[in-house]
Amino acid sequence: MSQFSKEILHMGEMASGAKLTVPVYHLKNTPENKKGLNVYIQANMHGAEVQGNAVIFQLLELLKSLDIQGEITLVPYANPVACNHKNGEYTLGRFDPITGVNWNRMYYYNAECIPIFVQENLTKTDEEIERAFKQLLQQTITDKLEHNQYGLTTGQRIAYQLQKMAHQADIVLDLHTGPISSKHLYCPEYAKESARYFNIEHTILIPNAFDGAMDEATFCPWWTLQNEFAQQGRDIQFNKESFTVELGSQEQIDLTLAKEDACSILTYLSYKKVLVNTHLAPVNMKRYACYLKDYKAFYSPMGGMVDYLAEFGKPLAAGEPLVKILRMDNYGDGDAIHYLSLDHTVLPVLHFASASVNQGTELYKVFTNFFEL
Amino acid sequence: MSQFSKEILHMGEMASGAKLTVPVYHLKNTPENKKGLNVYIQANMHGAEVQGNAVIFQLLELLKSLDIQGEITLVPYANPVACNHKNGEYTLGRFDPITGVNWNRMYYYNAECIPIFVQENLTKTDEEIERAFKQLLQQTITDKLEHNQYGLTTGQRIAYQLQKMAHQADIVLDLHTGPISSKHLYCPEYAKESARYFNIEHTILIPNAFDGAMDEATFCPWWTLQNEFAQQGRDIQFNKESFTVELGSQEQIDLTLAKEDACSILTYLSYKKVLVNTHLAPVNMKRYACYLKDYKAFYSPMGGMVDYLAEFGKPLAAGEPLVKILRMDNYGDGDAIHYLSLDHTVLPVLHFASASVNQGTELYKVFTNFFEL
Amino acid sequence: MSQFSKEILHMGEMASGAKLTVPVYHLKNTPENKKGLNVYIQANMHGAEVQGNAVIFQLLELLKSLDIQGEITLVPYANPVACNHKNGEYTLGRFDPITGVNWNRMYYYNAECIPIFVQENLTKTDEEIERAFKQLLQQTITDKLEHNQYGLTTGQRIAYQLQKMAHQADIVLDLHTGPISSKHLYCPEYAKESARYFNIEHTILIPNAFDGAMDEATFCPWWTLQNEFAQQGRDIQFNKESFTVELGSQEQIDLTLAKEDACSILTYLSYKKVLVNTHLAPVNMKRYACYLKDYKAFYSPMGGMVDYLAEFGKPLAAGEPLVKILRMDNYGDGDAIHYLSLDHTVLPVLHFASASVNQGTELYKVFTNFFEL
Amino acid sequence: MSQFSKEILHMGEMASGAKLTVPVYHLKNTPENKKGLNVYIQANMHGAEVQGNAVIFQLLELLKSLDIQGEITLVPYANPVACNHKNGEYTLGRFDPITGVNWNRMYYYNAECIPIFVQENLTKTDEEIERAFKQLLQQTITDKLEHNQYGLTTGQRIAYQLQKMAHQADIVLDLHTGPISSKHLYCPEYAKESARYFNIEHTILIPNAFDGAMDEATFCPWWTLQNEFAQQGRDIQFNKESFTVELGSQEQIDLTLAKEDACSILTYLSYKKVLVNTHLAPVNMKRYACYLKDYKAFYSPMGGMVDYLAEFGKPLAAGEPLVKILRMDNYGDGDAIHYLSLDHTVLPVLHFASASVNQGTELYKVFTNFFEL
Repeated sequence: MSQFSKEILHMGEMASGAKLTVPVYHLKNTPENKKGLNVYIQANMHGAEVQGNAVIFQLLELLKSLDIQGEITLVPYANPVACNHKNGEYTLGRFDPITGVNWNRMYYYNAECIPIFVQENLTKTDEEIERAFKQLLQQTITDKLEHNQYGLTTGQRIAYQLQKMAHQADIVLDLHTGPISSKHLYCPEYAKESARYFNIEHTILIPNAFDGAMDEATFCPWWTLQNEFAQQGRDIQFNKESFTVELGSQEQIDLTLAKEDACSILTYLSYKKVLVNTHLAPVNMKRYACYLKDYKAFYSPMGGMVDYLAEFGKPLAAGEPLVKILRMDNYGDGDAIHYLSLDHTVLPVLHFASASVNQGTELYKVFTNFFEL
Repeated sequence: MSQFSKEILHMGEMASGAKLTVPVYHLKNTPENKKGLNVYIQANMHGAEVQGNAVIFQLLELLKSLDIQGEITLVPYANPVACNHKNGEYTLGRFDPITGVNWNRMYYYNAECIPIFVQENLTKTDEEIERAFKQLLQQTITDKLEHNQYGLTTGQRIAYQLQKMAHQADIVLDLHTGPISSKHLYCPEYAKESARYFNIEHTILIPNAFDGAMDEATFCPWWTLQNEFAQQGRDIQFNKESFTVELGSQEQIDLTLAKEDACSILTYLSYKKVLVNTHLAPVNMKRYACYLKDYKAFYSPMGGMVDYLAEFGKPLAAGEPLVKILRMDNYGDGDAIHYLSLDHTVLPVLHFASASVNQGTELYKVFTNFFEL
Repeated sequence: MSQFSKEILHMGEMASGAKLTVPVYHLKNTPENKKGLNVYIQANMHGAEVQGNAVIFQLLELLKSLDIQGEITLVPYANPVACNHKNGEYTLGRFDPITGVNWNRMYYYNAECIPIFVQENLTKTDEEIERAFKQLLQQTITDKLEHNQYGLTTGQRIAYQLQKMAHQADIVLDLHTGPISSKHLYCPEYAKESARYFNIEHTILIPNAFDGAMDEATFCPWWTLQNEFAQQGRDIQFNKESFTVELGSQEQIDLTLAKEDACSILTYLSYKKVLVNTHLAPVNMKRYACYLKDYKAFYSPMGGMVDYLAEFGKPLAAGEPLVKILRMDNYGDGDAIHYLSLDHTVLPVLHFASASVNQGTELYKVFTNFFEL
Repeated sequence: MSQFSKEILHMGEMASGAKLTVPVYHLKNTPENKKGLNVYIQANMHGAEVQGNAVIFQLLELLKSLDIQGEITLVPYANPVACNHKNGEYTLGRFDPITGVNWNRMYYYNAECIPIFVQENLTKTDEEIERAFKQLLQQTITDKLEHNQYGLTTGQRIAYQLQKMAHQADIVLDLHTGPISSKHLYCPEYAKESARYFNIEHTILIPNAFDGAMDEATFCPWWTLQNEFAQQGRDIQFNKESFTVELGSQEQIDLTLAKEDACSILTYLSYKKVLVNTHLAPVNMKRYACYLKDYKAFYSPMGGMVDYLAEFGKPLAAGEPLVKILRMDNYGDGDAIHYLSLDHTVLPVLHFASASVNQGTELYKVFTNFFEL
């Protein structure tokens, strides 16, 4: 059986002095042996993307009767500022309401230290290198948190506290959702093989480029480090994997679906030998993938009210309509209905959350140049 | 065939001087004869409740091939200030974002003039009374619009312009939606019979009390007038009917569903003889009703994330859960899952639009003491 | 010296389970004697109206060296849901962001119980009546808080908890601010004399009509009770006073100004003999008043950008401009500048917080038919 | 006298089909001679930053009686989507409410084409080079606007339309404001000399780095081009200047102040010989400057309510408080007042717009390592 512990992190403070906290759950194999990987799972960095909390609930329930080899840390409500911020009836999704900055673009990564690190550690063993680099990553974040006369933004303080925990892990899963969405997975190109162990129909393969997100913040350093050693003629594999797992639509809690998604994650963890003595196998399904550069947003060329026609997960032929746009102001003396389509086959993955759009609102995100995984 | 015309109303002006307009469609029987009722239909007074626009589209399409006896006015995008007000990804639903006032609580009705009117018109014929009172209602609104040194609020200016049109009608349909919702109908108690001609499973029977809404603003004056005449010993029937038609959920356009709802409305209009030579009959279905005082909102006793369990339109037994509330902060040392229920049978009609709730957020609205219509 | 104590009230719970609390401060004369009035002071019921918190800070500081006769309860951050709700850079002012309901319209008062109470207590002494009625008021609120299968709205739960404390008091001060505003006081008509002891230049005299606000919720019951006894031929005076004190502009904390306002309040409390051995006298200033029906909002007849010209506290002659409205869209082929005025003298008291207005936005609130107090 | 013309640009379309337009004013010397520079001035790209519209009004009024040599284009309400977006009482300032993207980070610049251009135009004359490059810049934007199967975001469509006009100019002035702010100027390092001709006390000197803003989008290409030619051994000066002019505080229209700022701009334009026969001289004042890297934001280490103490434009010594933070929740058993300061001298330039802050909200922006210009 595994050992369970719970910790409370202080994540923010509001105008009245109210403290916002985050519960952190740890599971460890007992008796403690050093074998096995360290896993970090968080949910709800974006306010409206709540379903990951239900998945963490189901993971904790299911893990009660499973054998862990290694260690698992689970963090629901990762961003309590966002998750408590109602905006009308809905929860404000993706950005700090004061600054507009996407909460998932505030993690830290500075590639500049890596060539120096490689230079200084060329003669060390693989284990020493991995330990030293892990420590460097964590120390860098600790410094950002503790030494800052000018302070940190609300989002940085949250992101850095989460990142500090994530940097202890070998595997990082950041649970998100789309607006109205199918399940999809952001996966580093080198970890493509692992994507087959999630029961997720769409995978976006992402390059070694840091744009501020949690997955990138935790795999880019190791990927870059590996490349840097390779350039020095040394082949070293770190086997770190980070994924952004998009669970479906925002603004929904469904505990039954959450159990399915928890099983999907456990299947992957079995494959990575974090779970032992399980018989979890990935569901036999068609898995599509495309490269990040081929994952495209389609913006509305007009304002109007949208009937979303294209289904998720089914290739849509060139010329087939994605949406019908209603423009009652044109009824009687113009076109009240507009069909919008593209001139090549795409795979629709998600669409906008509301039927009302301005000119330039993102309508759909689609795979182009997609292939079976 | 009917005669079609289109008009543009100026409904508001924004900071940049941008004018917000509303298209108004008129259909009339030709050659014009005086027979038949006058119908007024509007949609989208609340910003997020857009499906009524699609229903008006389908009504206009279907009416092209139907025989009208009387006159129909249709107003989509009735409140362009609200319908264009994005708040994050969603449209701000129900109130003026500056003042918080519900857009559908700004219509005007002053009961005080009615006893005086009755006194002055006791000797008139029924037709004369009806004509004079219609004129009085319209004149009152015209005065509010035109004589106001201190001005009108944004919502009053919109509401009064719509109400002025609605006061010309014998039948008023105000198309709304719930948040996430089944179809339901607000119907004055005296018009209960008519509710059977809509294909709508839930009817709320409302009393002769004005709370600012369009339906009340157009039926309360006539109901009160009738009562006042009755007290003077004169029995006079005006046969005015006003309904708020709740089409389902907000933030959705579905042109296929809209056609069904358009047929439901046309069925009612056939029954009222506004359409002739049609063979539209109401769908055979179980229709439930309750009185407004028995239509109850259930507020969350706690903050948390909600899995909405109770289905719409099925009686829910006492003790059966409406929702499961997830509270991950309590996992491990408290109750992470809470079931909430009531101690008597209810009929769930709609629920809140988001899974995240504060303590005190409305979770469900339900019928109690309901009965078959 | 007075005895100080502090208590924490639980006021709300958010989606993550975060609890929002309110500190409550009590000051009592010691050794305890029964003489003296009970005072209740709260601040920040509306989110953006924060200056009252600073005034409570200064009151607590100043009261350290003053002699209290009676008891004072002070509640800053009265509505932590509102005061923590950022909306862009600003704090969402006046209403529940989910429902639009004004936070200061959710207090409870039911006049129906009063005639019954009078009937039942006609033979009691004045002290017995006062004690019994106080108890009735508190019990009514306790019942609302504790017995509600369908629950309470977020705002009701907050309002009722505050009201329960306020019903213990003889004097209630609810500290608010306007948007951009001069100081002004809402004062029940019968307490006009007391308005002279605040250093506040504008007083609005309000009738015995309940519209949901804290001041009304605490003085209307007693005023009605007194009237009801008078009708039964019994003259009884309760000397309850409740005021809404509007401290100036929202979105500002100024601890220096707060000290002045604290002194103004202490001057009134000295006059009411809650403070003894002080030498506080009201500032010699021109105090204007008008009746609530003569306190008017002026709404913009057009959208545009506003240069607010009229100064607060100075009578503005008929025809003198309140504002200049800029409409650059009309430059070159229309009027780019519009002057707006009224046809009678008014006393401007506050104006809207932003330079950008829609058609129908409230521009100014002004006294008409005003007089010196 | 100059020749005046007005044009209307279509900038966006909302859900109801409402079109948002922008007026564009052109002034030209007549009879047309080719001499003189081309100037582009826009205002209100950020919704709440409205004062620039008033400055454009005053510029147009003053220019009626001045001699222009060259051409001036003026665009008020540059972003009507933002300027019409109310969020509570205020205008949502700086970002697209749907995506969170800063409206002034969506301009386009791609440095990659420049080395190729230099290679292809090495043998051309200075005039030919300037003309060809101007054409290239405009053509690039035209292509983005016209050839985009996947569409443009709301902000891109607005930004590109403005940028296309700005690329015709030699001088670009983008009129903004801070939240609560002193006047300040963003000035490219090479144009430092020109900053002395504005009556603005603070100048931030910015490097040749593109971060999406209008000023950068219009000067970076020319600066880079010049550098690229220099590397090829050719010295060529383009004399393009772009500034972001921060006029003071947001949410305010003040036509009197606007006239002063219009004079300040005209003084600069006289210096650049766009105006002739004028006697405008810059005001004699202390002008401070610092480099962009030394322009720092100070974030609140705690939640609370803020009394902003530090005045703008006066050096603040190390240890002197910027703010006092009130935390009433700590009164009686902790520190209710916190003073925050820095350990070196700074020059405060602007502060946050609201008194209520979360932990991590930007409190002040200050110059460090500043010097007299």
